[in-house]
Amino acid sequence: MYKVKVGKKILSANEEYAVKNSRLLAEQKKLCLNMISSPGSGKTTILVKTINELKGKIKIGVIEGDIQTDIDAERIKATGAPVIQINTEGACHLSAAQVSSGLERLPVSDLDLIFIENVGNLVCPSAFELGETGKVAVLSVPEGDDKPAKYPAIFAKSKALLVNKVDLLGAQAQVDFDVERVKADARKLNKSIEIFLISARTGEGFAEWCGWLLRAVEELR
Amino acid sequence: MYKVKVGKKILSANEEYAVKNSRLLAEQKKLCLNMISSPGSGKTTILVKTINELKGKIKIGVIEGDIQTDIDAERIKATGAPVIQINTEGACHLSAAQVSSGLERLPVSDLDLIFIENVGNLVCPSAFELGETGKVAVLSVPEGDDKPAKYPAIFAKSKALLVNKVDLLGAQAQVDFDVERVKADARKLNKSIEIFLISARTGEGFAEWCGWLLRAVEELR
Repeated sequence: MYKVKVGKKILSANEEYAVKNSRLLAEQKKLCLNMISSPGSGKTTILVKTINELKGKIKIGVIEGDIQTDIDAERIKATGAPVIQINTEGACHLSAAQVSSGLERLPVSDLDLIFIENVGNLVCPSAFELGETGKVAVLSVPEGDDKPAKYPAIFAKSKALLVNKVDLLGAQAQVDFDVERVKADARKLNKSIEIFLISARTGEGFAEWCGWLLRAVEELR
Repeated sequence: MYKVKVGKKILSANEEYAVKNSRLLAEQKKLCLNMISSPGSGKTTILVKTINELKGKIKIGVIEGDIQTDIDAERIKATGAPVIQINTEGACHLSAAQVSSGLERLPVSDLDLIFIENVGNLVCPSAFELGETGKVAVLSVPEGDDKPAKYPAIFAKSKALLVNKVDLLGAQAQVDFDVERVKADARKLNKSIEIFLISARTGEGFAEWCGWLLRAVEELR
């Protein structure tokens, strides 16, 4: 009797592509970061600002994952960076196979850094390895400071955490958000996580975040 | 040969429980609303404020879905409303079976309205019927006005849309958000959707939202 192990097979298919992507990136010594957050945390705005900040220093390409529409890819395209749009047609995360097809269509050998912008979802994308160098979680201030406690997986697995929209903190704060709680909860899950407080609107914290990216690209060379 | 149709079977198991829940709610003439949004849109704060606003008018119970922790259930408990915590242990949405077990443990016959607070996720929960009377989508202003376009399923399926955190709009707006775009995009997906602009922080819009709930409860009696 032949047993069809469906759950296992699906995972393996994704893993096979993840290994393929990981090998390609390692051979070509490219940094590839998988950006994961809730919808509306500011992933695209962060990428646009990061690409503009690092213009002339390193070359960045983007794989844009969205359920549908090319709203985000158009925003990236306006920076001049190469971008591949992948529509998941309802699926809640990018698969390694989709990223593989994205990498085939990007001019990888000309790039230093490839960002994967995953579908806006704090849960599912953290369970699917894409072969990336590392994951970057984005948490925006208005989402609340309880998110590392309530959605631990992505915080446990990420190389870096960007706390975005910090311009909504401060003396005349309109949003309750305890930065120290987020730092403590994230570090409880992940001792080595890098945490950057940024505002993609004001540019606060981008010197530190972009400095970290440049060093990570440099280390791979 | 016996073919195992795995995808179909899983859906059917969920559907069976959804039908069971739906029958129980219809027999007992109870309104049951499934609240769906991204993490941090304010579902729990909205429920706490809604329960407090409607105290003495109708009796409300809550089924709280979270990946882990009972942070949200504790907040509901403080209002005095009966609440059942369900931890999905990593799963990205509530299942109809979990809701069925929640309904068994709630004093349903004493209640007028049961809220299901789904796992924070704008994608997956919209694909799983729980037997609820209707879905309510929550979109908070800082998430951005492109969300109905980018995550259409939940907006297409909801009876009502709560646009929350509208206190972040206004003359000294710190957040870009075009309310008219959200209304137009949501109504393009769903002609009959009710849209309420609320702030669970200031109470703006709660008279309209709570009035709608009271009328919906009344209609079922």
